[in-house]
Amino acid sequence: MLAPGCELDPDQEVVRTRPEDVPASPSTSTMIVSFLRPPSHASCTACGTVTFHIVERMASVIPASNSSMRSDRNTYVGKRFVHVKNPYLDLMDEDILYHLDLGTKTHNLPAMFGDVKFVCVGGSPNRMKAFALFMHKELGLEEAEEDIKDICAGTDRYCMYKTGPVLAISHGMGIPSISIMLHELIKLLHHARCCDVTIIRIGTSGGIGIAPGTVVITDIAVDSFFKPRFEQVILDNIVTRSTELDKELSEELFNCSKEIPNFPTLIGHTMCTYDFYEGQGRLDGALCSFSREKKLDYLKRAYKAGVRNIEMESTVFAAMCGLCGLKAAVVCVTLLDRLDCDQINLPHDVLVEYQQRPQLLISNFIRRRLGLCD
Amino acid sequence: MLAPGCELDPDQEVVRTRPEDVPASPSTSTMIVSFLRPPSHASCTACGTVTFHIVERMASVIPASNSSMRSDRNTYVGKRFVHVKNPYLDLMDEDILYHLDLGTKTHNLPAMFGDVKFVCVGGSPNRMKAFALFMHKELGLEEAEEDIKDICAGTDRYCMYKTGPVLAISHGMGIPSISIMLHELIKLLHHARCCDVTIIRIGTSGGIGIAPGTVVITDIAVDSFFKPRFEQVILDNIVTRSTELDKELSEELFNCSKEIPNFPTLIGHTMCTYDFYEGQGRLDGALCSFSREKKLDYLKRAYKAGVRNIEMESTVFAAMCGLCGLKAAVVCVTLLDRLDCDQINLPHDVLVEYQQRPQLLISNFIRRRLGLCD
Repeated sequence: MLAPGCELDPDQEVVRTRPEDVPASPSTSTMIVSFLRPPSHASCTACGTVTFHIVERMASVIPASNSSMRSDRNTYVGKRFVHVKNPYLDLMDEDILYHLDLGTKTHNLPAMFGDVKFVCVGGSPNRMKAFALFMHKELGLEEAEEDIKDICAGTDRYCMYKTGPVLAISHGMGIPSISIMLHELIKLLHHARCCDVTIIRIGTSGGIGIAPGTVVITDIAVDSFFKPRFEQVILDNIVTRSTELDKELSEELFNCSKEIPNFPTLIGHTMCTYDFYEGQGRLDGALCSFSREKKLDYLKRAYKAGVRNIEMESTVFAAMCGLCGLKAAVVCVTLLDRLDCDQINLPHDVLVEYQQRPQLLISNFIRRRLGLCD
Repeated sequence: MLAPGCELDPDQEVVRTRPEDVPASPSTSTMIVSFLRPPSHASCTACGTVTFHIVERMASVIPASNSSMRSDRNTYVGKRFVHVKNPYLDLMDEDILYHLDLGTKTHNLPAMFGDVKFVCVGGSPNRMKAFALFMHKELGLEEAEEDIKDICAGTDRYCMYKTGPVLAISHGMGIPSISIMLHELIKLLHHARCCDVTIIRIGTSGGIGIAPGTVVITDIAVDSFFKPRFEQVILDNIVTRSTELDKELSEELFNCSKEIPNFPTLIGHTMCTYDFYEGQGRLDGALCSFSREKKLDYLKRAYKAGVRNIEMESTVFAAMCGLCGLKAAVVCVTLLDRLDCDQINLPHDVLVEYQQRPQLLISNFIRRRLGLCD
């Protein structure tokens, strides 16, 4: 947990452990000390949590010979490569990207993906296919549309399409699902020696206090307590990571949105939850133990804290992309105003049009970046 | 957090809140008091967490007129209906099960699903389709195989197949993804007035200290700290729920396994994590900040605590099914021994055979239950 006003650098993390959760083991304290030098800690009498007020460098176990991997995204001056922060990876004879059905021995990843500059990720497989086909048309590429096939067809966990420098991948729903995909995607971009990659999550969300159909560009992802952090469990530690996104990229996207007629867009905080029903204060789940008044109180406090929409992937997306040197943005359309209702009951054609809005914005952005705009 | 030795009844929960996470609001304390009468609390000086040592009854906001919904699964004597624990649900004019593309006004749910007695859920859509087709054959039903179509074809979030009294549904990867599906599935079973339903999750997992291909029947699901609990964030509270599974059902399944030749099976604890890489101590993710020794130390401590396999859905599955009166089991095959390796590199035919093992066991179980065994 961060002290009030304490901001995390993308390469720095706060680690805490819950010793009462761990059977007495001489190695527990050793493990923490091995990558930390805690100057102080405080013990919680209620829950037993010990908080170490210390920052961790992700690369602290990297051998000296691999010290080039320590490079920080903030020190970038030339080509910006994707950083994996794992000293073991380059020692592996083969890397099987199991959930993508790809691997370093079975596929020529640099040849397949080396030219990728834009990665777009979204929950729904069908929507990511539609986005790839849309981008293909917008980029005016020569390749036949029929040749855009699911690169991950050997698995049904995710789907992946490539058109020119644009890669579109589905990630399923929720933090764990997108986290698996991101680990393997980041390794893929690393193995393929991609550089200067921009990654954007496009999705749907529930709005708070804004009209359905509004596109929200996330400035920072916050958790259920409205805090800009992602808590990652690693062995017996809870590591807190920054969820800041690329400010320049958000502003560039916002400027793009102004060029599209009738395209309501704003920049705001996005709340990321572990659950769609109880976790977002819905009254229509199989379980509900709170009142309508408490729900509204919670959502209004979220609004007051700057939250404009709620989804289920942005914190881990921001954290992992930040740590790995990927310029990242989150662009989600809202399908309802949660101050008004819980159920999504838009007419089908309206729903389809809303869902296309993030795709339209990203297409404009990519075309501008590639100098293809009028 | 539970005090040592404290066990949770499925209908009881421990609620705690993190007041430093919530902007000062007069309603915060009121909200907690409204469904709790905390006899004592302790404040954490390190993280600010306030823990209320109190149990919550899920049905505490249910009006007196709906008190029949308070029934506990332990008090069942006749037909066991599925309990939704949400007083608002029956007040709704229509319930749209958005992620299943079903609804109470658009579909006759009792006619479609009223005879369901066995629900099998698993991560992969293809595997759940394969299971439905396998069950169809095993049950010797008259309906043509081609008629077994994806009931949720209007969405790509989940897929669902029905054959006789067996419903097979995919749930994607991770706690949030299965949680959305379970909320909507439980409401579906409630709307369809199903009774005496048994639900089984079949899946793949990483083993600890056991041979790949072993089928693990879960006695209790534990979290990353080896504790039998699921922490659900509800508004500003963290609610701790029991993750116990049905003991009789586990033993019945284990007895079934003995009848299948060359079918290594055991009953043990299953650890459920939020992440496949760092969360399970893998050395092959895009991020890795710990050593091989620390990984092995963690996994060996898990083994010592009774954990025999690791997956990503069992805690929330056990918690939600327990609260809603569904007799539940988790049956996962292990694809590797995590004490030996991190990557899944089985030959394709071996992988396919292993993945079929939970299906084979469940098919035997269902056929026995229906009196179709020799």
